Amino acid sequence: MTRAGMVCSGCGKQKPFTYEELTCECGSTFLVDYDLEYVRKTLTQQSIVNRATTMWRYRELLPVQSPQSIVSLGEGWTPLTPIDVSRIPLSIRKLWMKREELNPTGSFKSRGLSVAVSLLKERGIRRAAIASNGNAGTALAAYAGCAGIDSIVFVPEDCPPLIIRECQRYGAHTFRVKGLIQHAGQWVESYKHIFDWTSVSTLREPGRVEGKKTLGFELAEQLGWRLPTVIIYPTGGGSGIIGMWKAFKELRELGFIQGPMPRFVSVQEIGCAPLVRALGKQVDSAEAASPTGMRVPHPPDIVLLLRILKETEGTAVAVSRGEIEEARRMLGNRGISASPEGAATWAGLLRLNEEGWFGQDDQVVLFNTAHALPYETLAGTSNIPLLTNLHDLINTLRK
Amino acid sequence: MTRAGMVCSGCGKQKPFTYEELTCECGSTFLVDYDLEYVRKTLTQQSIVNRATTMWRYRELLPVQSPQSIVSLGEGWTPLTPIDVSRIPLSIRKLWMKREELNPTGSFKSRGLSVAVSLLKERGIRRAAIASNGNAGTALAAYAGCAGIDSIVFVPEDCPPLIIRECQRYGAHTFRVKGLIQHAGQWVESYKHIFDWTSVSTLREPGRVEGKKTLGFELAEQLGWRLPTVIIYPTGGGSGIIGMWKAFKELRELGFIQGPMPRFVSVQEIGCAPLVRALGKQVDSAEAASPTGMRVPHPPDIVLLLRILKETEGTAVAVSRGEIEEARRMLGNRGISASPEGAATWAGLLRLNEEGWFGQDDQVVLFNTAHALPYETLAGTSNIPLLTNLHDLINTLRK
Repeated sequence: MTRAGMVCSGCGKQKPFTYEELTCECGSTFLVDYDLEYVRKTLTQQSIVNRATTMWRYRELLPVQSPQSIVSLGEGWTPLTPIDVSRIPLSIRKLWMKREELNPTGSFKSRGLSVAVSLLKERGIRRAAIASNGNAGTALAAYAGCAGIDSIVFVPEDCPPLIIRECQRYGAHTFRVKGLIQHAGQWVESYKHIFDWTSVSTLREPGRVEGKKTLGFELAEQLGWRLPTVIIYPTGGGSGIIGMWKAFKELRELGFIQGPMPRFVSVQEIGCAPLVRALGKQVDSAEAASPTGMRVPHPPDIVLLLRILKETEGTAVAVSRGEIEEARRMLGNRGISASPEGAATWAGLLRLNEEGWFGQDDQVVLFNTAHALPYETLAGTSNIPLLTNLHDLINTLRK
Repeated sequence: MTRAGMVCSGCGKQKPFTYEELTCECGSTFLVDYDLEYVRKTLTQQSIVNRATTMWRYRELLPVQSPQSIVSLGEGWTPLTPIDVSRIPLSIRKLWMKREELNPTGSFKSRGLSVAVSLLKERGIRRAAIASNGNAGTALAAYAGCAGIDSIVFVPEDCPPLIIRECQRYGAHTFRVKGLIQHAGQWVESYKHIFDWTSVSTLREPGRVEGKKTLGFELAEQLGWRLPTVIIYPTGGGSGIIGMWKAFKELRELGFIQGPMPRFVSVQEIGCAPLVRALGKQVDSAEAASPTGMRVPHPPDIVLLLRILKETEGTAVAVSRGEIEEARRMLGNRGISASPEGAATWAGLLRLNEEGWFGQDDQVVLFNTAHALPYETLAGTSNIPLLTNLHDLINTLRK
């Protein structure tokens, strides 16, 4: 067994592996600890090469015990697409986009929920609930459906309707509730005992952070066991940041990589930027944040997130809705269908570039965490004109 | 150079490699021919293992000459997900779903257009046009955008609006035209010389069939250089069937695989089933076909398609809209967001199973050619109720 127990990310306290109760007395979060000596016996840079191209290629560093418990739809091992920086006036050396929209449920949330649902299966849990801004709900619905586990999804009232549709397609009971994600979270917590469901909300169980960790493993492997110098990540609950930071630490201890951690940059939207504020930066909050995965006013462990941003000499940046829209257009023209969160990483890149934050040797990774499509409304599509004559064709192409 | 020239799939006539003019005097289609002796020098089962996990890992068997011309967004190498047949009363041995919705543009069309646009780049073409039922238009838009090539997409008037949205997102001039795909095709052909665009419609250029070929390469490699016994494919223009058939022939000549071809099964929708009719089967056509990629009343080379179905002892089957909807529900419950075309392969499987067409040793591959999302409308989403009290929650979960 490679999972050795839990370690508190704050005070270092240890305890045996647990499926729940991740909050330590000190207020910080317990994370899964591995027996790396044992891991090393089967997981080597050489042994990985011939494994299946899903995130389960790193199975020794994932907390699921038996292969029979793994619930997989082919998640992970998404492309890391190089982007030509010469076409844009960027003073960095290299740029990549990690294509997380190419996961089975159309977003990066496939990773965490594949592990979380596998842990539910391992324990014999029959019903799970989640508070989500959308994509995590979709992912729970899909993996739970696949495992024959009942799923209940609570989303904020303004959650994009097509995301709700996807949750329903996978068979989840899906509820819109008044307020924001923390209010959805209250429904999950309050009625836990009445309905006997297990919460898979952010940092309520160990699977989601561990699943997100594979983002870090893949980055390192896809770059030939080197790390980028900067990671720009759209941050809501922040389990991706925590996961990648943990991944790099584990890879370092295993001797797979050397050198410093990348600088972690959290991107948030003006109107809901708790990390940016906590770093003491001014945020113009005239604008309300849009219903995206970044809109998490109270991240479950903001202390750990801030520690990671500071320790790695990263930062947090808030971008506007207008900047996100412009970034989506720019990415579209490069052949990438970007979610608002994914586009926000591009907008954050441009903003920090303008501020002169990068060095010219920086190698930067962005994350397109989901497709544009689930966020789409049909506004304006009813009046896409019908082409009837050559004249109209000439006029449009001349524009 | 591995591409040796063109060979007519009908009469066997040879000619040098051409970027256009694929129709032979005999009426059949010219396909790309490779110098397999030369290919063999660098492409081996061993050499492939360490290559990038995109469809370009088979680059010696793709017609693009220089690596600089390749326009890639990370297409191909999609998961082949095993489906548990014990949960369904199916009298076959094994079942897989090839997850083509996990391509960069959300559909299998990424493959063909990645090659087609690379060939445009190789030739220095600046403008391309396509007649499409939707997903091929999206793919042209994305790859052309990426290569800095102007793209013009013509779709039938009832094309799903979110697909048009995606085409526009990638920067394509997108036009709805009256009628079906052949009418869209008339726009492309009629105004070719006025606007100086190159057609990348089905079988107008060699790249799309060659790109689809990689579906066949991947199936073989992912199954450990064995082939399934049956392939069930949603068929419109049919370049996927032609592509996989060609792939298996090439792999056989290279000695990578042995044994018989899989039986190819074309799935179409009642209301537009030219292949099913051509095989002399009765089709109840009371229903009009829905706007999907299968709705191609006049496939460009139906003779070749029928030959492949007959030679491999396959068949063609027409399913109803109701069967497709039911199949989408069943796939959703297995964690797969399926397009109507992808669901149709599942519906076709159930239909043929009922007819007793399979042997109990059959190993069957289905194709989810695209996500459900692009086909989605928002009908009904405005009245997703807001959860306000425990009573409603109890009532819904009891149902």
